[in-house]
Amino acid sequence: MMTMTKLKERSLLGLKDLSRGEIDSILERAAYWAAREEKVVPVLNTRFVANMFFENSTRTRFSFEMAEKRLGAQVLNFAAAASSVEKGESIYDTVKTLESMGIDAGVIRLKPVGVLQELAGKISVPLINAGDGNNEHPTQALLDLLTMKRKFGTLQGLSVSIIGDVSHSRVARSDLWALRKFGAEVKFCAPPNMQAPELDVPYVSIEEALKSDVVMMLRVQLERHETGMLGSAEEYRKQYGLTEERAAKLSKHTLIMHPAPVNRNVEIDDAVVECEQSAIFTQMSNGVPVRMAVMERALL
Amino acid sequence: MMTMTKLKERSLLGLKDLSRGEIDSILERAAYWAAREEKVVPVLNTRFVANMFFENSTRTRFSFEMAEKRLGAQVLNFAAAASSVEKGESIYDTVKTLESMGIDAGVIRLKPVGVLQELAGKISVPLINAGDGNNEHPTQALLDLLTMKRKFGTLQGLSVSIIGDVSHSRVARSDLWALRKFGAEVKFCAPPNMQAPELDVPYVSIEEALKSDVVMMLRVQLERHETGMLGSAEEYRKQYGLTEERAAKLSKHTLIMHPAPVNRNVEIDDAVVECEQSAIFTQMSNGVPVRMAVMERALL
Amino acid sequence: MMTMTKLKERSLLGLKDLSRGEIDSILERAAYWAAREEKVVPVLNTRFVANMFFENSTRTRFSFEMAEKRLGAQVLNFAAAASSVEKGESIYDTVKTLESMGIDAGVIRLKPVGVLQELAGKISVPLINAGDGNNEHPTQALLDLLTMKRKFGTLQGLSVSIIGDVSHSRVARSDLWALRKFGAEVKFCAPPNMQAPELDVPYVSIEEALKSDVVMMLRVQLERHETGMLGSAEEYRKQYGLTEERAAKLSKHTLIMHPAPVNRNVEIDDAVVECEQSAIFTQMSNGVPVRMAVMERALL
Repeated sequence: MMTMTKLKERSLLGLKDLSRGEIDSILERAAYWAAREEKVVPVLNTRFVANMFFENSTRTRFSFEMAEKRLGAQVLNFAAAASSVEKGESIYDTVKTLESMGIDAGVIRLKPVGVLQELAGKISVPLINAGDGNNEHPTQALLDLLTMKRKFGTLQGLSVSIIGDVSHSRVARSDLWALRKFGAEVKFCAPPNMQAPELDVPYVSIEEALKSDVVMMLRVQLERHETGMLGSAEEYRKQYGLTEERAAKLSKHTLIMHPAPVNRNVEIDDAVVECEQSAIFTQMSNGVPVRMAVMERALL
Repeated sequence: MMTMTKLKERSLLGLKDLSRGEIDSILERAAYWAAREEKVVPVLNTRFVANMFFENSTRTRFSFEMAEKRLGAQVLNFAAAASSVEKGESIYDTVKTLESMGIDAGVIRLKPVGVLQELAGKISVPLINAGDGNNEHPTQALLDLLTMKRKFGTLQGLSVSIIGDVSHSRVARSDLWALRKFGAEVKFCAPPNMQAPELDVPYVSIEEALKSDVVMMLRVQLERHETGMLGSAEEYRKQYGLTEERAAKLSKHTLIMHPAPVNRNVEIDDAVVECEQSAIFTQMSNGVPVRMAVMERALL
Repeated sequence: MMTMTKLKERSLLGLKDLSRGEIDSILERAAYWAAREEKVVPVLNTRFVANMFFENSTRTRFSFEMAEKRLGAQVLNFAAAASSVEKGESIYDTVKTLESMGIDAGVIRLKPVGVLQELAGKISVPLINAGDGNNEHPTQALLDLLTMKRKFGTLQGLSVSIIGDVSHSRVARSDLWALRKFGAEVKFCAPPNMQAPELDVPYVSIEEALKSDVVMMLRVQLERHETGMLGSAEEYRKQYGLTEERAAKLSKHTLIMHPAPVNRNVEIDDAVVECEQSAIFTQMSNGVPVRMAVMERALL
């Protein structure tokens, strides 16, 4: 059993409490993996990783699995119907069970906020946050940072607008904490019912938001919100969407990002998703080397 | 990125547009794999294959996975609830996402017709059709051909009856296109509401159909059809089923086939499924080497 | 194809018909694997194992998968919605299909009693019972025995109380058959509607039951039973649960066991689950080497 300090250094629960230096070293290692030609480098070939998805996500699970397998790890997948694991207690029992069976690290995605922190205090193998509630989604933010860094060279002084449902967004939170450590300037743009007043971030109009170096559109889940003026997808698009018209007016150097999956023609127009300024699929490409770096850090 | 010509040669979207020579070379390679004793020959051990099943099928997925793992490939499975991917657009986004993550080939099964063709024009890794709508199911037809060839030595001049719901059957279509290229004669036998008049194939009575060298029974999904005279399983069996009585009258050289899963005692009687003349489980055995040949063609 | 005798020696359908010597040799091999430091010992690296779960169980599937992968086996998972395989016939077709595709062994979990025995007579690869109906769950009992043996040195003369819903419990049955072969004394404690009168086992009061060397609590599924005096979880806990009060009065040498998953604060109190005398998570640890021994026996 490793010491709690060692364990804490290997786990990745969030970016808020990670130092700039630690984040930088993950990003550098991710860049290294992105550049490596070999598909499989089996440095983890005797390590067992459990991908425990208590909340469904094909993309994130797939990205972690690619990363783990490129490092030669033994991968076991676990997906639980949300219904059967709504209580934090049974999540604990499941994770504790898999730990007892001998996994070397666990990748976890779950809904209830606070459970991951609690788990980390009780489980003695490194845990990687693959999205917890509306708290943090650190590997997504890391891949966002890698994408921005590769485009702009540095994060220092970069202006980043995050547009949409920031209140429910763990991506917005992880990006915010990390970007600020590197001297980037973050602004939010959101309808009143999707704002997160507890975060000390300035809100700007959509016109203002689109002047930033990076324009990050968030996925809107209209079903989560009371209907009203913004209750329709069409109305949302008109007021907050990155429409073709708005995209045409962006500065040529502005990078369009989105954590995916995209609601085409709601928060972002169909034609914009794969336009030249869009880094949406590049983000997904960068996810694999980022997660390789994170898994290596957890297990080597 | 490979050229579009090269990519087209590696993908397998259907048999309709494949030459007899190309089909022959896949069948020969399948026969080679069927004869190889070693379970695992890791020629694809640095290649990542995604089995993307937007329509559920345990058997087909399992068969592909066996084939891929016998070649040592890295396999990632993806199964989507039909409900979440009814729109072609989100299928595209998912496939594009997995491509961005670095898969080397994708095996796809989906319902909406035409989407696979569209995908093939936009995705830059080889795609293998594991069943699309009622269009084609090429690997099933290839294993059917391999099964017939191994039994009869040649496909030239073979008479093949396909009996049942040809209107919804992608298997019937793929078999039809391929068998004709090899000079086999295909007949259909189906109740009026299950016929496919757009295909230029003669319809015969069940008595006539059972005189062929190969009698291929299709799975009937009665829930798809309006009730009426053939609305009951019992009535269907009586009119179109391969009952024990009918099976007893078959010529001794006639081969009984079925793409599975079987509705026992509907389109085929329980006792007939594993009778001496039935090749139903042989077909499934042949599926693995056929898919090894197809994956090798896609990736080597 | 192996002979039926050989096949029978490699399969593991239950412990009732296994000799004490056979069980002992599995336990010894399990102890060997438990002691081995290496995570992966690829003795089965060209063997294909299908985990066929016709009844859902994350823990058991995960434990088998760990065991198989620690031995380097090629693992394919299959999980079927209970609804689609309620009929024994379609279970047979699925297993026969996977056999045709070339699997070397099958791990099966299913609900309908008797189907596994039937399968074993028709399928020519070793089958491992991962839980069938309320009949047997041999690997669970083997890990229970290993846990007891490691604690007490011997099973001879050990007193074991099994408390709870024995009527539905395959674990109780497998443990009973196996423990008796080793000279342990088994008692049951259960409310009248959860008893299994067909088993020749004495019933004792909860007070009496807790005096044994091993106290094995079973998972209670109240929804299975008619409501009444014991219809509420609270009432069940009061009468049959291992509460903190009761646990405090246990002899210090008494071992607390549970096959998991646990209903905390129903059959066992939250604080008792991980108390010093509890072997619950140790049981789960022991499951992996036990299943390694079982898979090795099936395939080497």
